[in-house]
Amino acid sequence: MPNALPPSTPRQVRIELGDRSYPILIGSGLLDAASTWQVPGATAALIVSNTTVAPLYAQRLDRALRAHYRAVHHVSLPDGEEHKDWQTLNLIFDALLERGCDRKTVLYALGGGVVGDMAGFAAACYMRGVPFVQVPTTLLAQVDSSVGGKTAINHPLGKNMVGAFYQPQLVVCDLDTLKTLPDREVSAGLAEIIKYGPIADMQFFDWIEANIERLLARDPEALAHAVQRSCEIKAWVVGQDERESGLRAILNFGHTFGHAIESGLGYGQWLHGEAVGCGMVMAIELSRRLGLVDAPFAQRLKALVARAGLPVAGPQLGAQRYLELMQVDKKAEGGEIRFVVIDAPGRASMRAAPQALVHEVIASCCA
Amino acid sequence: MPNALPPSTPRQVRIELGDRSYPILIGSGLLDAASTWQVPGATAALIVSNTTVAPLYAQRLDRALRAHYRAVHHVSLPDGEEHKDWQTLNLIFDALLERGCDRKTVLYALGGGVVGDMAGFAAACYMRGVPFVQVPTTLLAQVDSSVGGKTAINHPLGKNMVGAFYQPQLVVCDLDTLKTLPDREVSAGLAEIIKYGPIADMQFFDWIEANIERLLARDPEALAHAVQRSCEIKAWVVGQDERESGLRAILNFGHTFGHAIESGLGYGQWLHGEAVGCGMVMAIELSRRLGLVDAPFAQRLKALVARAGLPVAGPQLGAQRYLELMQVDKKAEGGEIRFVVIDAPGRASMRAAPQALVHEVIASCCA
Repeated sequence: MPNALPPSTPRQVRIELGDRSYPILIGSGLLDAASTWQVPGATAALIVSNTTVAPLYAQRLDRALRAHYRAVHHVSLPDGEEHKDWQTLNLIFDALLERGCDRKTVLYALGGGVVGDMAGFAAACYMRGVPFVQVPTTLLAQVDSSVGGKTAINHPLGKNMVGAFYQPQLVVCDLDTLKTLPDREVSAGLAEIIKYGPIADMQFFDWIEANIERLLARDPEALAHAVQRSCEIKAWVVGQDERESGLRAILNFGHTFGHAIESGLGYGQWLHGEAVGCGMVMAIELSRRLGLVDAPFAQRLKALVARAGLPVAGPQLGAQRYLELMQVDKKAEGGEIRFVVIDAPGRASMRAAPQALVHEVIASCCA
Repeated sequence: MPNALPPSTPRQVRIELGDRSYPILIGSGLLDAASTWQVPGATAALIVSNTTVAPLYAQRLDRALRAHYRAVHHVSLPDGEEHKDWQTLNLIFDALLERGCDRKTVLYALGGGVVGDMAGFAAACYMRGVPFVQVPTTLLAQVDSSVGGKTAINHPLGKNMVGAFYQPQLVVCDLDTLKTLPDREVSAGLAEIIKYGPIADMQFFDWIEANIERLLARDPEALAHAVQRSCEIKAWVVGQDERESGLRAILNFGHTFGHAIESGLGYGQWLHGEAVGCGMVMAIELSRRLGLVDAPFAQRLKALVARAGLPVAGPQLGAQRYLELMQVDKKAEGGEIRFVVIDAPGRASMRAAPQALVHEVIASCCA
C-alpha cells in the first residue's frame, strides 16, 4: 500500500557516539521512500525478516533498496523469542555465504526486537563486522531495542547472554507499520515507553498518563511524539554510556524481575514488554520498601501499567526460583543481584537490596 | 617443571590502540610468575585450553592465577582446526553460565591459534564482552594469531567467517612452552615469521635466512628474537589499521592461496602455517608474473620456505576449485579476488590479478 502523497519530512533523533553516530528517522511512508535507505560504500543488501513481517513489508523495502544496490537478497526467520538462538542466527550466515556476500553487504533488520537483535548480532560477526540498518516494525523495537546497539541471542541458561555492542548505520521507524501490530504488542511497546518516565522524565510520564487512550488507539500524532521522546531519552543515555558501565543500566528498570518472569515461564509465554511492565511494578514496590519513593507514586505507576493493558501481578514461580533466575542476570556482580530502583520520580540508580525485602516484594506482587 | 631460578625480565612489545592498548610479554618461566597475570577489576578466571595443552600447562597457570582470583575455572576443548566451530564455542558459554560467571570474569586462552580464536570470540560475545588474556603455547600463535585481536570460528562454507575484532588485555608468550611443540608445528610457526620479511622488513628476512637452523633447533635466544621482531612488526601494522580497512591486509600475504588449500583439502589436513608457507610461494610467483619482483627473489623466498620444513608445492585441487574457494575469501570484493602481492622486497600491497595469470600460478605451483 504505497502512499500516493509524498511522505512528510521525518522527525530525526541523533545518537552521538563519535565516528559511530547515526540518525533515527521517525515518520510515515518511510518504507517506500527510496531516498531514506542508502548506506555509503555498500554494494548489496540482505533483508532479514521473519515469517510474519516479511509477507507484509519485505517487497516494499526490496523495491526501495533496488535503487541503490546491485543485489537485494532475503532471508526469513521463524517468528518468536523462542527462536532467538544460534540455530536461527546461522540461517543468516548461511544466506550470506550461499549468496557470496562480502564485507560491502549491508543487513536490513525488518521486524521486531528479535529480528533486530539477531540481524544486528549477525552483522557484528559476519566477516568480523558488516554494516546494518534497523527497520523496526513493532512499537517496542521502535522505542527501545532498535536503538543503542545492543544485539544478542539467548542461551538455554540465560537471556541475551551471547551478543555484542554493535551500532547500526541508521534506524528507520515507519509509524505506518504499527497499523498491522496486534493490540497485545502495542501494550508491550507501551511498557518501554512508560519506563522512560520514572527513570528520566516525569513531564513525559505526565504526558503518557494524559494520552494513554490515544496511544492505545494508535493515534499517529501521539505515536510519533511517544516514539520521538523515547528515542531522545535513550539516545541521551546511550551517548553517555554506550557499553553500560554505569548510567545505561537505568534503561533496565523493570528488567531484572522481568527477565526472571520470561525465563521462569519459558521464553515466548509472556511478551518481553509484558514482563517488563510487571517487572516495573515489582521494582517500584522494591523502591518503596527501600524508602525511596512513596506509596502514592508506586500506585500511580502501577495504575498506568494496568491502563496500558499490561499485567501487574507476576506469575507464582516461588521466591527461590525468582532469586535463582535473577542471579544469572548480566547486571549481577559476584553473585549479588543488582536492581534498578527509582531514587525519586524521574531519577534511577542501581543497587543491591536485602534478600528479605526482595522476598516481600515477590510475595506481595505475585498473585 | 617450575624454574628454580627467578625468571629473567621478559621482553615487552606494546600494541598501541588508544584505550585498548596492551603489552605482549615474551620470555622464559612466565607461566609460573604470578606477578604476570592480574587483570585489574576481575574477580574470577576461566582457563580455556584443549585436551593436548591442558595436561601440560593448565595446572601451572591455575596456581599462578589463584593468587589473584577468588575462583579459577577450567574448560578443555577438543584439539584441532576441525573443531573451531559453534558447537565447540558453546562449550565455553556453557562453562561460564554453569559456573555463574559474571562480567568480572576474565578468560585465559591457553593453547594455539584455535584456542585463542575461540576463547577470544567467546570473550567478545559473553554478556556482550568480558576481558581476556592470550597465553599462546605454539610458535604460530606467539608470532601471529594471538596478537592483534582477530577472533573467529569457521562456518561450513568458509574459514573465519564468523568472528570479531576484540583485543585482549595482555598477551603472554612463555618460550618454554615451545619445548613440547611437535617439529611440524615449529615449521608452521616459521611460515608466519618468514612472512614478515617480504612484506615489511628485509633485514629481518636476512636474519631468518642466517638463523633458520637455530630456529628449527629451538635455540632460546633465536626464538626470543624471532618472536619479538614478529610481534613488533605486527604491532606496528595493527596499531595503524586495527580493523583491516587497508594496510593490515598485508599480513595476509600467502593466506588467499593458503585458505583455499586448507579449505579444499578439508580443515586439519594441512596445518595453517603449512598452507601459508605454500601460499607464500604461490603469491610470490604471482608477484613475479605481475612483473613486481624478479625470479631470484621469488626463488630465495621459496628456498627459505623449504628450509623451514614447509611444503612448497600446492595440492592439485584444479584451478577452477582454487578460484571458487578464493572467491569466498573475506578480502574478495564484489566477487573479485584480491591478492596480497610483493611490490618490492619488504613492501606489499593488495590488488586483483588477471585470471589467466592466476591459472598459470596454480599450474606451475601445484605438483
